[in-house]
Amino acid sequence: MNLEIHRERLASELDALGAISQEALPVVTRVVFTEADIRGREFVKSLCREAALAVREDAVGNTFARWVGADRMLAPVGTGSHIDAIPNAGRFDGTVGVLGGLEAIRALMRAEYKPRRSIELVIFTSEEPTRFGIGCLGSRLLAGLLDPVAADQFKDRDGISLHQARCTAGFQGPLSSVRLPAGYYSAFVEMHIEQGPILEQHNVPLGVVTAIAAPAGLKIAIEGEGGHAGAVLMPDRHDAFLAAAEIALAVEASALSTGSSDTVGTVGVCEVFPGAVNSVPSRVRMEIDVRDIDQARRDAVLQKIELAFEEVTRRRGVEAKMELVNADPPAHCAPHVVNALIQACETNGVPFERMISRAYHDSLFMSRIAPTAMLFIPCRGGVSHRPDEYASPEAIAQGTLVLAEALARLSSQ
Amino acid sequence: MNLEIHRERLASELDALGAISQEALPVVTRVVFTEADIRGREFVKSLCREAALAVREDAVGNTFARWVGADRMLAPVGTGSHIDAIPNAGRFDGTVGVLGGLEAIRALMRAEYKPRRSIELVIFTSEEPTRFGIGCLGSRLLAGLLDPVAADQFKDRDGISLHQARCTAGFQGPLSSVRLPAGYYSAFVEMHIEQGPILEQHNVPLGVVTAIAAPAGLKIAIEGEGGHAGAVLMPDRHDAFLAAAEIALAVEASALSTGSSDTVGTVGVCEVFPGAVNSVPSRVRMEIDVRDIDQARRDAVLQKIELAFEEVTRRRGVEAKMELVNADPPAHCAPHVVNALIQACETNGVPFERMISRAYHDSLFMSRIAPTAMLFIPCRGGVSHRPDEYASPEAIAQGTLVLAEALARLSSQ
Repeated sequence: MNLEIHRERLASELDALGAISQEALPVVTRVVFTEADIRGREFVKSLCREAALAVREDAVGNTFARWVGADRMLAPVGTGSHIDAIPNAGRFDGTVGVLGGLEAIRALMRAEYKPRRSIELVIFTSEEPTRFGIGCLGSRLLAGLLDPVAADQFKDRDGISLHQARCTAGFQGPLSSVRLPAGYYSAFVEMHIEQGPILEQHNVPLGVVTAIAAPAGLKIAIEGEGGHAGAVLMPDRHDAFLAAAEIALAVEASALSTGSSDTVGTVGVCEVFPGAVNSVPSRVRMEIDVRDIDQARRDAVLQKIELAFEEVTRRRGVEAKMELVNADPPAHCAPHVVNALIQACETNGVPFERMISRAYHDSLFMSRIAPTAMLFIPCRGGVSHRPDEYASPEAIAQGTLVLAEALARLSSQ
Repeated sequence: MNLEIHRERLASELDALGAISQEALPVVTRVVFTEADIRGREFVKSLCREAALAVREDAVGNTFARWVGADRMLAPVGTGSHIDAIPNAGRFDGTVGVLGGLEAIRALMRAEYKPRRSIELVIFTSEEPTRFGIGCLGSRLLAGLLDPVAADQFKDRDGISLHQARCTAGFQGPLSSVRLPAGYYSAFVEMHIEQGPILEQHNVPLGVVTAIAAPAGLKIAIEGEGGHAGAVLMPDRHDAFLAAAEIALAVEASALSTGSSDTVGTVGVCEVFPGAVNSVPSRVRMEIDVRDIDQARRDAVLQKIELAFEEVTRRRGVEAKMELVNADPPAHCAPHVVNALIQACETNGVPFERMISRAYHDSLFMSRIAPTAMLFIPCRGGVSHRPDEYASPEAIAQGTLVLAEALARLSSQ
């Protein structure tokens, strides 16, 4: 099979998708169901239709573009990722797996490969937790890991529910219809930028992921006592923000306390209310992310944060609530899918490294219903979720070549 | 002179102005040059015109409503306050001095008093720093304490300049025309709620202010390094928010370190960028307010904060900038205006207490160009800048009566 990746075309498609943003280039912000997200979806769907793929969408906006195989009765092979982007992000997170997946399919078509199983490109809805506070909405629902009724009532910061947002975006029908049966896919492969520095440091062009770290999310709401910044004496204060500041530092200390570089803890969201220079903060909303490849160690960190939270809020006399939004188990990749990736690397003479994903991916949830693995592409400086996120066209093309080869192997099995 | 305050009318006018808000009652939010602020201005101006006062506005929107006295050549007596309100504020801050000032004038008119000097009600623009980061915009400009060219370029969070905002609101002309010559007013009196607990605790109905505390404002911008919350290892981080959290706690510690209950330090604004749960904060904007009645002690606190700022930002490897937005000297009230207020209390048999204002007022700046004093009305629990801010109609009427009496005395001098 003569697989040829159209590197420039893929790079220019990535550029074009990157330009579809809520902000001016180089800043990519494409929050789920915003106008930019809708335009991004239209762009990808038009490319899929150009490639003669059959496109369908489910009630939460997950999008499926199928290349029908010789045996329609067999479970298809899936590949894909997401196109939504957090505020102030870059061009490659998610999109490389979507547009690279599409180019892999086009390369197989150009090579006149005839798949036995269908090959299906998946664009997952809201991998990023920006809008509804929980990541991987689409893949969680596909895997049946969210209660559809509760999920439909998730609210964004403006009080708009997932139900309202998806219906407005044109995705109607009951959310319960999204779930796929286990076995729906015979295999699932997600190509993604590494979002870490290891491949670049080791000068290795590809990573074959064997496990995905276990993330946990916490939401904290603190209710203190506001008042005039000039008039309320220091000893009389119950400043919600100072409590939040102490908790944020406790998150850092708890993550560092494990002594393992695999533990990370982050306070990425802290909103201070009313937010006036001459007003004592009365209320704070905070979101915390804790990850580890070792679930027990991660849960120990969560426990430390909870203890600090209780001590700080009691001492400062503020009301507070802490909610565990999600605490997913780590995923172990399926050996036969990992092997297909390794063989694809070897066939094409591409060096690779077995590695662990520290970042959170739709594959974490797809692994619950399908044999799943991931392919990592190096990104400059390990930087991601920033406008200067970068993966070279060469690295992306090499990953796409290996992905195409692996999809061919998996579709023939 | 038979002075009679129309208590119910004044209370209902305060209610009506409180209902003009960017949010639903009981929350008052009336940020300068928003539609609510404009409507609030219209409401007050219509009441002034009903009372046959001559209304003029300057280029920044300061509004003057004059009751012309017998001798037009003499400098008038001024009274007034502001009607803008921070987010999530109450109904009495500022408005009591504006509508109470108007009712004092109406009471003098009803008593058929004939003022020798004109009496002028002033509504100052943007006493609150919410929109442009600096308080008392109008009175600072009146007193010539801001460079008009620089001030016109002050920007709000959306990048809208003061120039754009005031022109859109209908206040045109050069900002340099706002400044009043020293001696423009023969005296200035501002009535205001105390915004502190002392009058209520001492069960005294009125406070005569003899000095206004010296406020200082700091703006901090921290530029750390963003990245993916899962992928950037803890030791590699330069988290802008954790630096901010440490600085906020240092502000508290510095204010407490003086051992005086008159020192207060507050971080009322902390904005975290990009503000996504799975993204390491790359940037933070923070605003700090430090006050004391002793300027040297306040400046020592500022110095402590600066040292902490430098230590934290260096240790955490983040770029940061700290700007002293304002550090105004305290104001000492003019003895003859204080005396007029005391005599007005005594004439009407109203007990009073001499006190210091911890909060920041337009009077602080008016005192630079006019003999100035303030009159404080007790407010429930000392609470201000909150929806449950409350001063009773009786307390407000008593203050208004004393204000009317004092204005008569000052206008005849």
